[in-house]
Amino acid sequence: MAQTSISLRRLKEIRSLTRRKYRDLHGEMLVEGWRAVEAAVQAKAAIREVLVTPALQGRLPEWVSQAGLDVHVVPQSELEEISAVETSQGIVAVVAIEQASPEALHAARRIVAIDGLQDPGNAGTIIRTAAWFGVDALLTGPGTVDIYNPKVVRAAMGGLWDVDHVEVNDLAGMLQKLRAAGFTIYAADLEGTSIESWRPASPSVLVVGSEAHGISQGVGASVDERVVIPGRPRRGGTESLNAAVAAGIVLYAWTR
Amino acid sequence: MAQTSISLRRLKEIRSLTRRKYRDLHGEMLVEGWRAVEAAVQAKAAIREVLVTPALQGRLPEWVSQAGLDVHVVPQSELEEISAVETSQGIVAVVAIEQASPEALHAARRIVAIDGLQDPGNAGTIIRTAAWFGVDALLTGPGTVDIYNPKVVRAAMGGLWDVDHVEVNDLAGMLQKLRAAGFTIYAADLEGTSIESWRPASPSVLVVGSEAHGISQGVGASVDERVVIPGRPRRGGTESLNAAVAAGIVLYAWTR
Repeated sequence: MAQTSISLRRLKEIRSLTRRKYRDLHGEMLVEGWRAVEAAVQAKAAIREVLVTPALQGRLPEWVSQAGLDVHVVPQSELEEISAVETSQGIVAVVAIEQASPEALHAARRIVAIDGLQDPGNAGTIIRTAAWFGVDALLTGPGTVDIYNPKVVRAAMGGLWDVDHVEVNDLAGMLQKLRAAGFTIYAADLEGTSIESWRPASPSVLVVGSEAHGISQGVGASVDERVVIPGRPRRGGTESLNAAVAAGIVLYAWTR
Repeated sequence: MAQTSISLRRLKEIRSLTRRKYRDLHGEMLVEGWRAVEAAVQAKAAIREVLVTPALQGRLPEWVSQAGLDVHVVPQSELEEISAVETSQGIVAVVAIEQASPEALHAARRIVAIDGLQDPGNAGTIIRTAAWFGVDALLTGPGTVDIYNPKVVRAAMGGLWDVDHVEVNDLAGMLQKLRAAGFTIYAADLEGTSIESWRPASPSVLVVGSEAHGISQGVGASVDERVVIPGRPRRGGTESLNAAVAAGIVLYAWTR
């Protein structure tokens, strides 16, 4: 494990990665906490460097040295400034953002498209679930939370490394292209085919919208079939499922 | 809609309901926000009174007056003290806690038992999902977050009114009694029968443990069959599902 020095200029650059503008500019994101950094190592993500607090110096686990990471010890105050959580574990990795090309999507069997989801916790949890079920790729468009946002990365729990990601400016247009290429486009919605009788085709795309607004109009025009999770609450207190839970159940039905 | 005055003594009592000790003592809980209060009304929960800020006076929706609620206008600062959220919607209801008797469980077809789950968001989301799928009752023991905690109530989104609740001191003992009475006890776990080939019996109990510690040892002894959600992450970054998502998928497979 090399513990080289790090320039103030680079530290400033790393600090800037808490903001989307600079993540886009530098093509890098922050990955925080032991579990998340270990998942990035396991999945062979492109880790540029790792920052740890002085308290962790000499006490790093074996997998850190085995991975040959570029580790830098920085003051606690510095790490706290970079950290998005209240109680930092004292470890943050800088990881290169590697997106797949839109053309690569054509080789996928299953693609999850996120349409206008703003809640970072729900978005990260959906990525984690998609990764668990072996979904090939994730497609996002404008109006969706930046999936390299530290809160999304944390909730995804390593899931970002198991799915390819393609970000496009025109989600509806991309879906139309995939449809023309033979993909069936499904959407999780409030009305449509019950997932109990759903027979998903392959290859296919599953569109997940926001809890508040559902699927956007432009995207809706490309959807072949909408699927729902039928409910039977006993006394009518419950109106819906949580967005990440609903997506999880549809993902299960889609991939099994 | 009656807008009677409220005594300072009663206001103090209501403020105390933010703490579990006083919820237990008074047998009441706080339900916050428009959607949650409306769900309580729809499900005919025992609403003792509703507190609103002066800004809402004269602007309350029709369902409030139709429900014949006891509405009190209190200063904004008072409501903020009672509120558990940063940006209060200015409406809080005080609702009587009504638990079912342990004997009533024997009439249930499906019971969810929560074993040692501490995260209020996950617990509330699991209650919401159980309610959506028509689960009859919820069984909790010591070591589980108080399900009348405002954060649980908020995440449950009305689900508390659709399932009966029984809180016991000895969860393992209660499960043994239910087993003796003919219930099959299932547990969502990391090893066991794949939910794809699972054929759940009726009546049955589904035990959900904590994300960190799984099912406790005492409870595990009463379990007939453990069920898992098989994963196939493409590059091994993802180790597990979120607890509420996993519970949601198992609940779907159990109840369809």
